[in-house]
Amino acid sequence: MPTLAEARALDAADPIGGYRKQFALPPGVVYLDGNSLGALPLGTAARLGEVIRREWGEGLVRSWNPKENGGADWIGLPRRVGAMIAPLIGAQADEVIACDSTSVNLFKLIAAALALQKTLGCPRRKVVLSEPGNFPTDLYLIAGLETQGLAERRLAPVEALEAALDDSVALLLLTHVHYKSGAMHDMARLTHAAHAAGALVLWDLSHSAGAVPVDLGGCEADLAVGCGYKYLNGGPGAPAFAFVARRHHDALHQPLTGWMGHAAPFAFTDDYAPAPGIDRLLTGTPPILGLAALEEGVRLIAEIGVERLSAKSRALSEFLRAAIAQVAPDLPCISPEGPGPRGSQLSYRHPQAYAIAQALIARGVIPDFREPDVLRLGLSPAYIRFEDGWHAAQALGEVLASGEWERAEFKARAAVT
Amino acid sequence: MPTLAEARALDAADPIGGYRKQFALPPGVVYLDGNSLGALPLGTAARLGEVIRREWGEGLVRSWNPKENGGADWIGLPRRVGAMIAPLIGAQADEVIACDSTSVNLFKLIAAALALQKTLGCPRRKVVLSEPGNFPTDLYLIAGLETQGLAERRLAPVEALEAALDDSVALLLLTHVHYKSGAMHDMARLTHAAHAAGALVLWDLSHSAGAVPVDLGGCEADLAVGCGYKYLNGGPGAPAFAFVARRHHDALHQPLTGWMGHAAPFAFTDDYAPAPGIDRLLTGTPPILGLAALEEGVRLIAEIGVERLSAKSRALSEFLRAAIAQVAPDLPCISPEGPGPRGSQLSYRHPQAYAIAQALIARGVIPDFREPDVLRLGLSPAYIRFEDGWHAAQALGEVLASGEWERAEFKARAAVT
Repeated sequence: MPTLAEARALDAADPIGGYRKQFALPPGVVYLDGNSLGALPLGTAARLGEVIRREWGEGLVRSWNPKENGGADWIGLPRRVGAMIAPLIGAQADEVIACDSTSVNLFKLIAAALALQKTLGCPRRKVVLSEPGNFPTDLYLIAGLETQGLAERRLAPVEALEAALDDSVALLLLTHVHYKSGAMHDMARLTHAAHAAGALVLWDLSHSAGAVPVDLGGCEADLAVGCGYKYLNGGPGAPAFAFVARRHHDALHQPLTGWMGHAAPFAFTDDYAPAPGIDRLLTGTPPILGLAALEEGVRLIAEIGVERLSAKSRALSEFLRAAIAQVAPDLPCISPEGPGPRGSQLSYRHPQAYAIAQALIARGVIPDFREPDVLRLGLSPAYIRFEDGWHAAQALGEVLASGEWERAEFKARAAVT
Repeated sequence: MPTLAEARALDAADPIGGYRKQFALPPGVVYLDGNSLGALPLGTAARLGEVIRREWGEGLVRSWNPKENGGADWIGLPRRVGAMIAPLIGAQADEVIACDSTSVNLFKLIAAALALQKTLGCPRRKVVLSEPGNFPTDLYLIAGLETQGLAERRLAPVEALEAALDDSVALLLLTHVHYKSGAMHDMARLTHAAHAAGALVLWDLSHSAGAVPVDLGGCEADLAVGCGYKYLNGGPGAPAFAFVARRHHDALHQPLTGWMGHAAPFAFTDDYAPAPGIDRLLTGTPPILGLAALEEGVRLIAEIGVERLSAKSRALSEFLRAAIAQVAPDLPCISPEGPGPRGSQLSYRHPQAYAIAQALIARGVIPDFREPDVLRLGLSPAYIRFEDGWHAAQALGEVLASGEWERAEFKARAAVT
């Protein structure tokens, strides 16, 4: 029977509990939507002030240069931030780069995987296999390449994925932790199965990086992308990241061949030649404000470390689950039961999930709603306390018991997020 | 014979001279590289502080919502900034959107043009025609689609462009103002010639928007892209913009079909359906920090207005040209002679252009160097004074006369920009 006293005792004993004060969290708010938009690290506001006033305002174009030439090394930011993300996902520093959006990076890597199959002598492998209900942008980008005549989209439910891996499959594209349910795929098993069938694997780590253990290297994953603005706290619409296993670097060709991915961008030649290594994933000029904010977010998460974050996430989600079971025993949880195969969230199903979410927001508890009937409670382990979980459960119990969600103002659909 | 007194008189009479104080320009610096990275508008630092501390820190995920729902209307930023850019380029408000990088937008629109030719019944038109020496990323993106088997790149020098417009050409892709020479294409004539040959036209306005008059609508241009961090002063790596003439909106399909370009992004369906209008150019989650900074930059440029900006630019470049002719009569200028067919820059050729640029920087005059031998002097009319031009000319004359550029420190190649 979880109690407030127990929550407070758990917080007092939490080895990473002290990090909460490094985030700007509005007073009186329990923020359970850090897996939609992560909270603001206090250091980010100061850093961006520096970047804007000193690096841009005073340094001007000179700030692109490396530090040894008097610059602020803007040019190195995509690689530098990528290298900081690498240990969070079981990658080597030179296998990860921060750039563009998750969606744009998905396009690059799906297209690159299809091209790589041709290089490997399998030009007839055009199927990109995923699951129905995967995060829409993953499915839509496959569709984009399908419209170009380059890919063929195939969807199979999770239990049928392995059987669907026939010799037409070029790529298995899955989101590691499902955005809606929080269910986590077995990355090692599915990567192995894909490889056994001659397919490459692309993992979307948007709901994983910075919250759950990921071992791309240990699983021998080929490709991955992920989001900078969820558990990495990089700010609204932060640049995303992309991973390519080192063994694929030389043969990998992605079609968004912009000047920053060129072997010699400032030679200004007419013909494209890809940069060696992960740099060939770059396309346009790096977005410095976004990358600087992402660097601050990642710095904090990397300092805490994924082991402590995931240990906290597991304990926190188990506590919240028990607390909700106490106040709303009939509310069906659609997330996996144990913390092992679960991301850092708990999702509940209710036909009035939208109105319930609005009623919770009015009480200062911010969850997320996902169509058509999912109430999603994200648990960013870097700044969410057990006490927050306790308060959220109490608020949810009261909203359900009182029926206050039935008020017209909560039922009116307006919000876009 | 230009003099300092004349420069000061021109500045005193300059109707937009007062805007200079709205930019953070380091004291003692003459900044002639605003066409590489525009200067910082003072309002941007304050606005970004607000966006970070209040909209992100306090508003959190709620800030995505429209203002009438208590948000900061982050979701509307791409359209809002696009609409602000529209009058600067002769477009309607709903024909422009701010998103991604120039390079990514080039890929979208080249691919969309090829697809549009198929829709129009011309599937064999696969050639994308451009000129050698165009800004590299434009040429590289055509190459990216060529590698995908979707395009065929053809380059013809400017005088042979019209003859190269045969019935295999799907798209004419040109940069309106050349990044190196500052030469400006005749947009109306070339657009008409392309249309007469059955080709579509895509204009890269990176070195035009905010500095020279552009009339996409009057020229009946089909597509355009442009850069946010040059004359629009949106900050390092700012989001870019894209234009699609309204008559093409319904038939336009671009392959980077991310969730933000979906007709109902938050319905989370498995199948892609493009949003109506210009929104279908969106791909991933909009980069809010970059867009907010771009909005501030564009606001100031739109307030000054392109007519006053281009009038100032013409007068300024003529003054600088005369002042340089006085101190360095033998230095060949590769920019067009009169201000009509010239962008807001003057470019000079010298085998030691790199070292000369470094020597100028050491004197507080920041030009740009472009391989292999071009010294580029950018004249951002919103904040560059006639007096700056006079000082720059004097510094250039002294650097050339003294031979100080021969010092080893200036000849050593290190800078990336």
